[in-house]
Amino acid sequence: MDNLKIGITQGDTNGVGLEVALKAIMPEGFTEICTPIVFANKKLLLQTLNMMGATMKFQSIESAADARPGKINVVNIGEQTPEISYGTPTPESGKAALASLNAACDALEAGEIDALVTSPISKEAIQSDEFNFPGHTEYLEARFADEGNPDSKASMILFSDDLRVALLTTHLPIAKVSDAVRADAIKDAVKRLDRTLRRDFACDRPKIAILSLNPHNGDGGVLGSEEQTEIIPALSDLREEKILAFGPFAADGFFGSEQWRNFDGVLAMYHDQGLAPFKTIAGAAGVNFTAGLEVIRTSPDHGTAYDIAGTNSADPTSMREAIYKAIDIYKARSIYDEASASPLPFSVQKSSNKPQ
Amino acid sequence: MDNLKIGITQGDTNGVGLEVALKAIMPEGFTEICTPIVFANKKLLLQTLNMMGATMKFQSIESAADARPGKINVVNIGEQTPEISYGTPTPESGKAALASLNAACDALEAGEIDALVTSPISKEAIQSDEFNFPGHTEYLEARFADEGNPDSKASMILFSDDLRVALLTTHLPIAKVSDAVRADAIKDAVKRLDRTLRRDFACDRPKIAILSLNPHNGDGGVLGSEEQTEIIPALSDLREEKILAFGPFAADGFFGSEQWRNFDGVLAMYHDQGLAPFKTIAGAAGVNFTAGLEVIRTSPDHGTAYDIAGTNSADPTSMREAIYKAIDIYKARSIYDEASASPLPFSVQKSSNKPQ
Repeated sequence: MDNLKIGITQGDTNGVGLEVALKAIMPEGFTEICTPIVFANKKLLLQTLNMMGATMKFQSIESAADARPGKINVVNIGEQTPEISYGTPTPESGKAALASLNAACDALEAGEIDALVTSPISKEAIQSDEFNFPGHTEYLEARFADEGNPDSKASMILFSDDLRVALLTTHLPIAKVSDAVRADAIKDAVKRLDRTLRRDFACDRPKIAILSLNPHNGDGGVLGSEEQTEIIPALSDLREEKILAFGPFAADGFFGSEQWRNFDGVLAMYHDQGLAPFKTIAGAAGVNFTAGLEVIRTSPDHGTAYDIAGTNSADPTSMREAIYKAIDIYKARSIYDEASASPLPFSVQKSSNKPQ
Repeated sequence: MDNLKIGITQGDTNGVGLEVALKAIMPEGFTEICTPIVFANKKLLLQTLNMMGATMKFQSIESAADARPGKINVVNIGEQTPEISYGTPTPESGKAALASLNAACDALEAGEIDALVTSPISKEAIQSDEFNFPGHTEYLEARFADEGNPDSKASMILFSDDLRVALLTTHLPIAKVSDAVRADAIKDAVKRLDRTLRRDFACDRPKIAILSLNPHNGDGGVLGSEEQTEIIPALSDLREEKILAFGPFAADGFFGSEQWRNFDGVLAMYHDQGLAPFKTIAGAAGVNFTAGLEVIRTSPDHGTAYDIAGTNSADPTSMREAIYKAIDIYKARSIYDEASASPLPFSVQKSSNKPQ
């Protein structure tokens, strides 16, 4: 397999996006791992290097199709000199982020890049007639989900080398979480997780843990009934469909006693339940993956970090991991798809077991 | 200060309570740290040692008042041979746990022990006319809170050497959490936390972090309004009262980026939000403390662990830490109370700054 072409967006102008992206790709030898293609305003890129006190050789290209292996490739986005005001979301910073994202998605759609890695945006700054989504995940779903296929949904997976966490509900107030914990939704989420574990993470027979909604697993119904009415029935249906789902597990003991190590994936019922322990465990190395679409997109698991933007102190670990993991997922998926597309005929398998 | 007398309950007969208690106190030299007084059925204790393949010298005493320093003291509870069925809560296992707890609390009330360390009970098995509480914390509050003082409330603090987490709501279904997040309740909880940090943890000017209820800190109201209507107003009132409260912080970033290291205490809005990251960070060394009462009680932060009861595989780390930490708290509180009771007169302080 040749070096993959990895498209990288600039993110919000006033956040740490381009800083962590450049820090991730500029070390010597990085272009032997993949061919990076940065979609960024070139003047912003030069100013970012200047802020970092760094120099970096790169190749200016008109289109991702012209990317050269062995080089850091930059597709210039926009001609205007950017207005930088580190730490503050502005209409300009949001527009620049969207222009970079749109160009990278066009390249992804055209097959000019193999996977997309996005830098953090400001959800406030980017909102516009053109971008009316809670975040990248929903934007990508609207753009890349299969029309007419109700199973083609984007879902958010946070992962590190050891731990993969999917969320049943994401950006929902706590007051509304209970209503969203429904057996059907749980079954759908577990099936999507099962599929991505097989296809994208090379898990042969994925074991999936489902967390309980309520403390102490609901304590037999005393601390809430959703375990009895929704989660356990969903589990039982899933097991009948031969999906290796287990639980429900009380979140504190599950993470505290390292029970999560026994599972390939975890379904948390809501945002903080999954992400607070995940980030505690993964530290700087957590990566966000948009599962369920035919395109591959990862990102660092942190935001714009406005409080340290422009100070050259952002840690590129998560961004670098996001690039590595996008490559891993691309390769795992290629192998899986190839194996599923042309299985060995039964007779061949059988004959190979015969004594010669 | 002489060796403190630490009362230790047996917990549920069919759980790991007595096993971890004995493992914690039996190492040579332990009785130089404190004088342990175990409240347990003696036959059960012998059977537990037998199950563990261990021997232990101990001193049988009639009452905690007779405890001898330098010895492991055992107050026998109940004359019947216990019925042991490891792994199953039974009416008998609950009764035995309650008898041990009652005897230890009597000794605590009489001043025969300096602090109480409880082994895990089964909340199901122990329920009876005499014990109608969600757990130890509420039982102790009913027994030891100052009548007529509305501020005398028990609150649950989970802590390790580095991290102390209090909970605004504890054993509450997620569906009811939002209604309980009220400015007044937050202010009360932070003040209680502030007081225990000063008095029991030797923090001079405690810095307290308050977590947000909703994901991403409510994203400016888009993901829930309680941050705006309850938490931030409570914070502002607390700051006017010179309490060093900060936040609200989104739980995932707060724990993931180790921001918690900048604070002496953390107030979480609900059980899993605080305890899942806490247990992930504290590992086996987490301790539960009942703050706010005049008596001192700690416990390990795990339950009966029925799945491994009777197998001699329970880890006594949390129990041992619970004993050490009860001693630390007793000492910190003694110093604080002494200092508050007889402050140096202002003139003496002043004169000491004069050049001699």
